[in-house]
Amino acid sequence: MIIVVKKESDESQLNSLVNWIKGLGLEVNVSRGENSVILGIVGDTSLVDADLIGSVGIVEKISRIQEPYKAANRKFHPEDTVINVGGNLIGGKNFQFIAGPCSVESEEQIIAVAKAVKAAGAAVLRGGAFKPRTSPYAFQGLRDAGIKLLLEAKKETGMPVITEIMSVEHLDLFEDVDVIQVGARNMQNFELLRELGRLRKPIFLKRGLANTVEEWLMSAEYIMSGGNTEVILCERGIRTFEPYTRNTLDLSAVPLVKEKTHLPVFVDPSHASGLSRLVSPLSLAAVGAGADGLIIEVHNDPERALCDGAQSIRPEKFAELVQKVDYMLPLVGKIRG
Amino acid sequence: MIIVVKKESDESQLNSLVNWIKGLGLEVNVSRGENSVILGIVGDTSLVDADLIGSVGIVEKISRIQEPYKAANRKFHPEDTVINVGGNLIGGKNFQFIAGPCSVESEEQIIAVAKAVKAAGAAVLRGGAFKPRTSPYAFQGLRDAGIKLLLEAKKETGMPVITEIMSVEHLDLFEDVDVIQVGARNMQNFELLRELGRLRKPIFLKRGLANTVEEWLMSAEYIMSGGNTEVILCERGIRTFEPYTRNTLDLSAVPLVKEKTHLPVFVDPSHASGLSRLVSPLSLAAVGAGADGLIIEVHNDPERALCDGAQSIRPEKFAELVQKVDYMLPLVGKIRG
Amino acid sequence: MIIVVKKESDESQLNSLVNWIKGLGLEVNVSRGENSVILGIVGDTSLVDADLIGSVGIVEKISRIQEPYKAANRKFHPEDTVINVGGNLIGGKNFQFIAGPCSVESEEQIIAVAKAVKAAGAAVLRGGAFKPRTSPYAFQGLRDAGIKLLLEAKKETGMPVITEIMSVEHLDLFEDVDVIQVGARNMQNFELLRELGRLRKPIFLKRGLANTVEEWLMSAEYIMSGGNTEVILCERGIRTFEPYTRNTLDLSAVPLVKEKTHLPVFVDPSHASGLSRLVSPLSLAAVGAGADGLIIEVHNDPERALCDGAQSIRPEKFAELVQKVDYMLPLVGKIRG
Amino acid sequence: MIIVVKKESDESQLNSLVNWIKGLGLEVNVSRGENSVILGIVGDTSLVDADLIGSVGIVEKISRIQEPYKAANRKFHPEDTVINVGGNLIGGKNFQFIAGPCSVESEEQIIAVAKAVKAAGAAVLRGGAFKPRTSPYAFQGLRDAGIKLLLEAKKETGMPVITEIMSVEHLDLFEDVDVIQVGARNMQNFELLRELGRLRKPIFLKRGLANTVEEWLMSAEYIMSGGNTEVILCERGIRTFEPYTRNTLDLSAVPLVKEKTHLPVFVDPSHASGLSRLVSPLSLAAVGAGADGLIIEVHNDPERALCDGAQSIRPEKFAELVQKVDYMLPLVGKIRG
Repeated sequence: MIIVVKKESDESQLNSLVNWIKGLGLEVNVSRGENSVILGIVGDTSLVDADLIGSVGIVEKISRIQEPYKAANRKFHPEDTVINVGGNLIGGKNFQFIAGPCSVESEEQIIAVAKAVKAAGAAVLRGGAFKPRTSPYAFQGLRDAGIKLLLEAKKETGMPVITEIMSVEHLDLFEDVDVIQVGARNMQNFELLRELGRLRKPIFLKRGLANTVEEWLMSAEYIMSGGNTEVILCERGIRTFEPYTRNTLDLSAVPLVKEKTHLPVFVDPSHASGLSRLVSPLSLAAVGAGADGLIIEVHNDPERALCDGAQSIRPEKFAELVQKVDYMLPLVGKIRG
Repeated sequence: MIIVVKKESDESQLNSLVNWIKGLGLEVNVSRGENSVILGIVGDTSLVDADLIGSVGIVEKISRIQEPYKAANRKFHPEDTVINVGGNLIGGKNFQFIAGPCSVESEEQIIAVAKAVKAAGAAVLRGGAFKPRTSPYAFQGLRDAGIKLLLEAKKETGMPVITEIMSVEHLDLFEDVDVIQVGARNMQNFELLRELGRLRKPIFLKRGLANTVEEWLMSAEYIMSGGNTEVILCERGIRTFEPYTRNTLDLSAVPLVKEKTHLPVFVDPSHASGLSRLVSPLSLAAVGAGADGLIIEVHNDPERALCDGAQSIRPEKFAELVQKVDYMLPLVGKIRG
Repeated sequence: MIIVVKKESDESQLNSLVNWIKGLGLEVNVSRGENSVILGIVGDTSLVDADLIGSVGIVEKISRIQEPYKAANRKFHPEDTVINVGGNLIGGKNFQFIAGPCSVESEEQIIAVAKAVKAAGAAVLRGGAFKPRTSPYAFQGLRDAGIKLLLEAKKETGMPVITEIMSVEHLDLFEDVDVIQVGARNMQNFELLRELGRLRKPIFLKRGLANTVEEWLMSAEYIMSGGNTEVILCERGIRTFEPYTRNTLDLSAVPLVKEKTHLPVFVDPSHASGLSRLVSPLSLAAVGAGADGLIIEVHNDPERALCDGAQSIRPEKFAELVQKVDYMLPLVGKIRG
Repeated sequence: MIIVVKKESDESQLNSLVNWIKGLGLEVNVSRGENSVILGIVGDTSLVDADLIGSVGIVEKISRIQEPYKAANRKFHPEDTVINVGGNLIGGKNFQFIAGPCSVESEEQIIAVAKAVKAAGAAVLRGGAFKPRTSPYAFQGLRDAGIKLLLEAKKETGMPVITEIMSVEHLDLFEDVDVIQVGARNMQNFELLRELGRLRKPIFLKRGLANTVEEWLMSAEYIMSGGNTEVILCERGIRTFEPYTRNTLDLSAVPLVKEKTHLPVFVDPSHASGLSRLVSPLSLAAVGAGADGLIIEVHNDPERALCDGAQSIRPEKFAELVQKVDYMLPLVGKIRG
């Protein structure tokens, strides 16, 4: 950590700052330049509150060298984290598909889709029970009933399941859910993250739509600092000025995040663009970028095709996609786990 | 609501869509152009799930004419909402100051700041008890103990108090808090909003750092649709590419939001820039833009000045600012309530 | 084009607007709703100035159905545009590499890199002569001398060359350059685009760092409306809030733009991230997304490796990348042209 | 300037970097930490190409302490720059209005508006002759004829005039223009900036719609490094995700930029929002934020009111605004110059 102190600061204020930092168990090297004094802080600064120091009156600039996350940091854990989800390995050399409908709607629907995506190669079944919706008047999901239907499909097909949590209060309902998803809008719901850190169950942490890679890793750190080390990251698009797509899928983040952390990184091409016809090209793009897996919305409801989600693809299309991805995997040094 | 249907759609799909919309109790006018069919939907479309219709295969484009919010909409409630907070009126012709420290730290601190800001003209006392922090290793506030200290200051000074809630589970602690703040990161924590809609207590709803004005009003609608009509909006800066300021204060949003809704709109110049020396110019700017009030961080801690918040100003500076604002109020047709 | 007229507008203003639009040779359908009057405009609206109509006092909202670009629009030209650059086909089924150093530095350097990238499979040689630099004190390129060296390399290797133009005044220098590049910062330098429209030579149009897909296509339209139909689009990253990468490569734009236009779309993974170690994963991602080619910075300067561009890769690495891309091409239905 | 060198770098590479920097006439302090080596660079680093150093393989991070601009930097020129435009002072304690129509349309129009805005208190007349338009099919301004009409209005009213340049080639036409405007889309047209630096005439430099404050100041530096020190900055809104306003006016930039530079800073509330009804509140906001002046679009064309610019206000409204601003000026320590 580098602290640049304003030139005009008086000596007693500077000493006071230096002593305060030393009191945190860190070493301080002072270099005096013509226009400023530079403090080089040596030691484990990941626990230092940089905002607090940055807010000190005499500080002109503060710049971290060490990343502010520790448990999630590849520097301290060079080996890839590999997570076992119902016998399927996630992370490392393994590539996995998570697939299923946007919302759980009925027993028939969820079981039919589960069978179809399992046959096509999906390892984990997804299905929304609690749905975050911008409007209070929009369909909010089947909620607890949706989770029950999802667990029916798990029993029927043997697939492990993933679904989204929206409040700490609902945690009891997730006991038999294999992977708990934290949605983009809750990426910085710190009270929720803290509770999930107390579990011993994989957490699927979507990137917030206006959150930096560093904030995303800090949210993983919230969970991990509670002792739950099984976090799967998921890039799902960020908010930009471009209106043609719902979000801008940030695929540069994939190789970058994999450098910085040992956690697996998935990509959600369905939510990113909001357009089903972009799911296939963006999936191949995600594989090329080095993702550890894909989470894909698949529907199977020919009668209601009229009102199908614009971002969902049909099982046949999904099966085709799996084959294309399989063709690509050797290129990126992965196998379907 | 205007729906543009793709030219190549077949007649039966079109009929199916038209009938489905009519089933929602709406009228549909069909105009056939050379390249597309246009459906004009007449009636109360605020309850219509536009995303769902937009996702229909044959739909090329959907465009709302009526806003998707109703309770918050000035069209249906032309009169300004005026909210009484411990005898202080907020909204309408009234301009108010909310002031206090970033975090509640001790009884002495909160009472001293409370007295100082009250003397300077603040109507409501702010003070953080639960603090949302990006890092799990940063100070998280005094939590329930902080709320107790804040209520001590309320008893001592008679000022109503505002503080932030971070989880539905903490709701009991807020019984004697006068105004509950929803922070930027929880603006789309829909489960929390829904619970706050069940209360009969003013909610201070900060704009999310990457949320549009429409999403912000939809979050107000979540609270209001539960029957709690006392929502105060607060602009606090949005996330942009500019790194010199922590956020970009969106003052254009103030006159715009006041056109669209009857709810009071405050501005938080302290968090927006993160720089105490910008608090005064941005406060005057907010008044010029038509804000109904300001929420300002004020500290009073000469001994620890070294580690004071970079975004907090001292009581003397706050008192000076109140005088400048008072000079401006006639220009914008307001009085200090 | 749909125009929503405010409910409170008087009849004479409405008639005046309707007549004015009819005067442009368009048909107007008037539908009267409860809260507004809706005008459906039928005919070729691509030449209509929507801003002007939107600015009319009685207009509440204007929404285009037809895109504002015509020459660039796939609706009117369904076949892919294929451009011949010195015998190499760009667009359609063809995939091409453009490669070379960031800046032309010397005859030895440019010829050595040219030979290396040609051997590895590049079709076109790139090399910066005029360099847009944020600081007036930074190296601005060799300018006209740089173009001469680039043309030497063309003569020596037979490769067609591409380099960036920064001002209309330099146009004479580009006579023997095969493809003229318009950089991101000049994407809306309309006077320059207009001049390039008078040429009969391919233009390589980079997307501006804060420009929408529609604005990008409108800039292509500027060139094409002058009669020069050979435009190659290039996505190179947009500006977002994320600081870890220099720009955010918008790969969703690739399949989207290919739907909307018949022009070839390239991707520049070197400038997008600014990090050489991301060039390879982002290149594979671009191929997966459906790009028609890649433009890659390659350096070959072992002695000065210390100061080599962080975004350039070495020829061996480039050759390896070409092989990986070749493996992928059948997946996306392309061949190396 | 602080350079963090990767821990694993070998000694010879480090020496090579240190010697290279010393060769630029700078001093280098080397501090060795546990995880990295830190180089503190002392001396005038404004001429150093930080991108180049940042691109060196062994460099982990580079961070400027000194700003990269010098002529524009308040540290080196603490006194406000005051510019004389036809007898009107701009900058320092002086507040000025620039007003006029969006486009020059006819002699009658420009002279009538000029007289009206002069009577209301405007010091300088604006009027667009060359108009940057996204579509090649939209009205592009009267171009050279427009400049002639503007100069007629100058002769008739004695007001100095400002108008936008779009290409170096048109420079001759601007000989009698008092202030040359560089539009947002040309803020990084470096060849144009360089030419304007050769003039001895005030340049009105609008901020690019996706440019940081630092880039904006670097563009001023381009002009000033050529010897033309009379640059007026103008904030006109930046591009964000918010669709309700055309741009997001960044008023925090005003006090911030005034700290960093001695140049005058104007605000353009007309283009920022694109909505005439926001011109007045955003103007008062700009004054509160500390702007040195406003540039306002004013039309006067009752017959064609139907097609008036949505962002222009009428002369009466402008006169009213001038009075409100005059009331505020003592608050911000300014007088109308």
